[in-house]
Amino acid sequence: MLIQPGKLLAQIETPDDLRKLDPSELYQVCTELRQYIIDTVSVYGGHFGASLGVVELTVALHYVFNTPYDQLVWDVGHQAYGHKILTGRRKIFHTNRMYGGISGFPKRKESPYDTFGVGHSSTSISAALGMAVASAYKNEKDRQHVAIIGDGSMTAGMAFEAMNHAGVSDTNLLIVLNDNCMAIDPNVGALKDYLTDITTSRLYNKAKDEVWNTLGKISKFGKNAQEIVSKIENAIKAALLQQSNLFESLNLRYFGPIDGHDIDHLVSVMQDLRDIPGPKILHCVTVKGKGYAPAEKEQTKWHAPGLFDKVTGEIRKKVYDKPQPPKYQDVFGHTILELAEQNDKIYGITPAMPSGSSLNIMMKAMPHRAIDVGIAEQHAVTFSAGLATQGLIPFCNIYSSFMQRAYDQVIHDAAIQELPVIFCLDRAGFAGADGPTHHGAYDIAYMRCIPNMIVFSPMNEQELRNIMYTVQLPDFKNHKSSITIRYPRGEGVMADWKTPFEKMEIGKGRKIQDGEEVAIVTIGHIGNYVTKATELLVEEGIKPAHYDMRFAKPLDEVMLHEIFSNYSKVITVEDGCLMGGFGSAVLEFMADHDYHAQLKRLGIPDRVVEHGEQIELHRECGFDPEGIAKAVKAMIALELKI
Amino acid sequence: MLIQPGKLLAQIETPDDLRKLDPSELYQVCTELRQYIIDTVSVYGGHFGASLGVVELTVALHYVFNTPYDQLVWDVGHQAYGHKILTGRRKIFHTNRMYGGISGFPKRKESPYDTFGVGHSSTSISAALGMAVASAYKNEKDRQHVAIIGDGSMTAGMAFEAMNHAGVSDTNLLIVLNDNCMAIDPNVGALKDYLTDITTSRLYNKAKDEVWNTLGKISKFGKNAQEIVSKIENAIKAALLQQSNLFESLNLRYFGPIDGHDIDHLVSVMQDLRDIPGPKILHCVTVKGKGYAPAEKEQTKWHAPGLFDKVTGEIRKKVYDKPQPPKYQDVFGHTILELAEQNDKIYGITPAMPSGSSLNIMMKAMPHRAIDVGIAEQHAVTFSAGLATQGLIPFCNIYSSFMQRAYDQVIHDAAIQELPVIFCLDRAGFAGADGPTHHGAYDIAYMRCIPNMIVFSPMNEQELRNIMYTVQLPDFKNHKSSITIRYPRGEGVMADWKTPFEKMEIGKGRKIQDGEEVAIVTIGHIGNYVTKATELLVEEGIKPAHYDMRFAKPLDEVMLHEIFSNYSKVITVEDGCLMGGFGSAVLEFMADHDYHAQLKRLGIPDRVVEHGEQIELHRECGFDPEGIAKAVKAMIALELKI
Repeated sequence: MLIQPGKLLAQIETPDDLRKLDPSELYQVCTELRQYIIDTVSVYGGHFGASLGVVELTVALHYVFNTPYDQLVWDVGHQAYGHKILTGRRKIFHTNRMYGGISGFPKRKESPYDTFGVGHSSTSISAALGMAVASAYKNEKDRQHVAIIGDGSMTAGMAFEAMNHAGVSDTNLLIVLNDNCMAIDPNVGALKDYLTDITTSRLYNKAKDEVWNTLGKISKFGKNAQEIVSKIENAIKAALLQQSNLFESLNLRYFGPIDGHDIDHLVSVMQDLRDIPGPKILHCVTVKGKGYAPAEKEQTKWHAPGLFDKVTGEIRKKVYDKPQPPKYQDVFGHTILELAEQNDKIYGITPAMPSGSSLNIMMKAMPHRAIDVGIAEQHAVTFSAGLATQGLIPFCNIYSSFMQRAYDQVIHDAAIQELPVIFCLDRAGFAGADGPTHHGAYDIAYMRCIPNMIVFSPMNEQELRNIMYTVQLPDFKNHKSSITIRYPRGEGVMADWKTPFEKMEIGKGRKIQDGEEVAIVTIGHIGNYVTKATELLVEEGIKPAHYDMRFAKPLDEVMLHEIFSNYSKVITVEDGCLMGGFGSAVLEFMADHDYHAQLKRLGIPDRVVEHGEQIELHRECGFDPEGIAKAVKAMIALELKI
Repeated sequence: MLIQPGKLLAQIETPDDLRKLDPSELYQVCTELRQYIIDTVSVYGGHFGASLGVVELTVALHYVFNTPYDQLVWDVGHQAYGHKILTGRRKIFHTNRMYGGISGFPKRKESPYDTFGVGHSSTSISAALGMAVASAYKNEKDRQHVAIIGDGSMTAGMAFEAMNHAGVSDTNLLIVLNDNCMAIDPNVGALKDYLTDITTSRLYNKAKDEVWNTLGKISKFGKNAQEIVSKIENAIKAALLQQSNLFESLNLRYFGPIDGHDIDHLVSVMQDLRDIPGPKILHCVTVKGKGYAPAEKEQTKWHAPGLFDKVTGEIRKKVYDKPQPPKYQDVFGHTILELAEQNDKIYGITPAMPSGSSLNIMMKAMPHRAIDVGIAEQHAVTFSAGLATQGLIPFCNIYSSFMQRAYDQVIHDAAIQELPVIFCLDRAGFAGADGPTHHGAYDIAYMRCIPNMIVFSPMNEQELRNIMYTVQLPDFKNHKSSITIRYPRGEGVMADWKTPFEKMEIGKGRKIQDGEEVAIVTIGHIGNYVTKATELLVEEGIKPAHYDMRFAKPLDEVMLHEIFSNYSKVITVEDGCLMGGFGSAVLEFMADHDYHAQLKRLGIPDRVVEHGEQIELHRECGFDPEGIAKAVKAMIALELKI
């Protein structure tokens, strides 16, 4: 289905075309751009609310600044659909997030207008500052650098680090603070309250009240008092907003707050700011989902709604004739609540992913014991470690790729101290349409090298439930370890998943089936592909053994001795990087115990794998069911060299 | 040499003893505590200036708060010597940082007064908040939680993340901001300027001037004006400091600044704050090195001066009769300047480690191209990536264990984008006396699993110089990769180290010697131990081959084919973790190419290795020269099982 652009939008191939328009036409451009996003996303899917919220900002930025010479860095990039459409990608925009199509995020390889690849939050100020320092070095005095960052992203420490540096840099850096009070879920924390205070003048009013209280009754100062009062008001407002605003504290000139949907005002303010040298911040207040009523109303739901009927606002849901397996995240969400109802030491922690992790289920039922700390993975981990020192049981749920943000804290604050923190890594393995920034490809490798760290991955819902049950039992502490529980995006395999809890043995795998000639050793959900591969192979009379190791660390050495005593051809399969991953752990075991089987590792190769459906990516990397079956046959054909 | 405590200090075994003293005696306790630190560190070594700077704070905290029930979390922990001496460790304090002795940092295993293990910066607020939330949950309303954090540590984003959460928490959390304008080197950035502004009332004066300018001449308001003026001054000061102070912006009640060396005032303020519920911050101004004149004067030099004559202030230096090899960090420091003089695209970036990395050499000569961004590893990496997008060549120097702080940024902002950022990881391998928080144990494992990442380690000064030369040549870009250059703390092996530059081939190792039966394959400086091991073995008629791989990634496959074609017994040696490290990379090569040699991996085992001299730790882990020689003999004795 071809999406038709409006009349003005149809003329815009690049921002140069946009800049030829009269300012009076920009309102119409915004309307058409917004409609184009609604038309496309409703049919092809993708992120939604964020881009609607910055339509006016996007048009104003490309109208005022001389892109791509002037450099825009979009933080996270969920909101950059308008940017993509205005910068030469309108006609391929329907391929957004599809295998082989354009990326859902800005990406350097895709366009010179995409100055920096994004996906994770809060990188934009650092990157734009790097560009600005480079421009200063090259004496490009006219060149502008703009970071567009949401109030959610501002809570991550990295943004603060960058502002601390920016404030003492003499660069043309403009930070556009896109303040919509939302991350994916509602934004949290003291900074959010502060921004609201500024926006509503609550801060100013509080200060004014205090001044009045100090001054006492005005009347006693006689007839000039009224004039003084008025002047004092203005003076204090100026002093407060300009001298000791949080951003001014960091030596960033602060402008705003202004209405981020008033295109005329945005253009005129940005034109002014373009001519003011030095680092500065423009505070824009916007509404996520702006211009599409259902999305304005339920902003979390419409962050990435899937396909929908744009007229009725009805989100299309697949209909099934029998019960389907749940998402792993929901198994986590329901199970932690179930356990927390029985064990009052359990806490749930999420850095700004209540709905993405399904911790919102527990947050609703137990708001004091399920905590959203904002986009702040580092703090989330060390805060959890602090809870653990006091005998509480923190389940710290962080997407696998976001956990990279808190790697030092996992080592330094949890593992080295032998604290039993439970790390639940959602979106482990290929993330799918979100692509390389979000693939949870490295976690087995980067976690298993840490001492006092157990690494587990469930093959199904029951294993996830049972490990969660196991680690909250009192004797788990005896392991003096943290644990990583990694599971993928998407559905499991058990429609009837709410099984009774059973304690698992740490470091114990299970044999799924005996076989001949070849043993397949897997970890996690990807083991289910082996079941399918086996079905393909049985027709050819081939029957590999299958072992679900469950733990990448500690390895089940008893089981591995059994495997290598019985099989000289072994295949490992993991939905993780081959360099240093689960297969390498098995190789280490072999070397340490002088086994010399032939071993083929299947998993994510050492290159950046782009976006697409998970199964498409598995196929590309050769570990979909067909790929596994092929590997078994190749292995059987191989002769031992020794 | 036994250090004698003063009369009062001698009576203090625990803070309970301290709390029995009369307030009037605390000044004397401070004097004696300071002297004890000077006496001990001058003879036994250790960190120095930081602990001297917090003597009064330490005494006041333990005097006012009911430790260990009330919980103190020291940020970083360099400054916790006084704390250790007052909490039962005075008599073993001379074992500080020695093999088998007490740790140089607070450590949970060592004492119940050490509530949280530290070493890296900026974790204290998160940890203390975790404890405070746990106390609130347990309904321990009287229990206090104090994070003591320096202004340097405040620049790291993690501290901001924690404050953003703390500000909306209803907990008994006190943050003591120990503001001495220093990290190890002078603190940098906008926050530092802001704290100075508060302390010197510059902020208030600026605002006042603005108010006056707005009001115009005072005289015209008649005879009451003087009274109004005075009241307005106070009112504005209150408004500024209490309503829109940076910390108040985050909803932390702000108190101070106060003199951090006035013990009486500190005690009285802390007693007041103890009774004020909710999250709050006390801003204390201190002098690093306080009470020891040379240390006050040259604060970076006296951060950790080594042994010194406490009377003359002369730092003891070893005297050698011939030129010694330089420290690797100095080879880096001199070489980057030498290269930058020829290549104007080179930038140097350090997160608050100018002297520790020796980037200060370049900073002095080229202040605009060598940048200290503050304690902000995340920003340092992405800022470097931003520079690289513009064709500049950033050498981003971060200690190996600190790089864990920026892991996501390395993946997300440098490697995935194929940007040629040069990461120089100092203190790779065992850090020595700083212990487990500072051991650079994991970098080979956590870096080599990243696509588009080259991992190199020099065996000597010449290799370090040559790789630095190589990566700044224009054609390095063609690799579309970042590079990790890891090198150890301490000296190299070449007294005459300033060799002419030679281009290296990426992914190319070198054979050091042919041998018989066993091949030893090494990476980095630890390869020099093999030379020594070979000398030990030659007496027994054993001659192993030795290959310096140089690159953990990409592996020199040509050389590995040579090795495995000629040797069926191979030993790998690395100063890094065995799980997923260099040896595992070699195992992966073997599996992929169907080699079945016996392979023994030597390196850091999968447990937390404590502090000590590097050679002591290498010996403990079995890869000192004797350990390597022993492994060769064991390997020769081994029979092939197949």
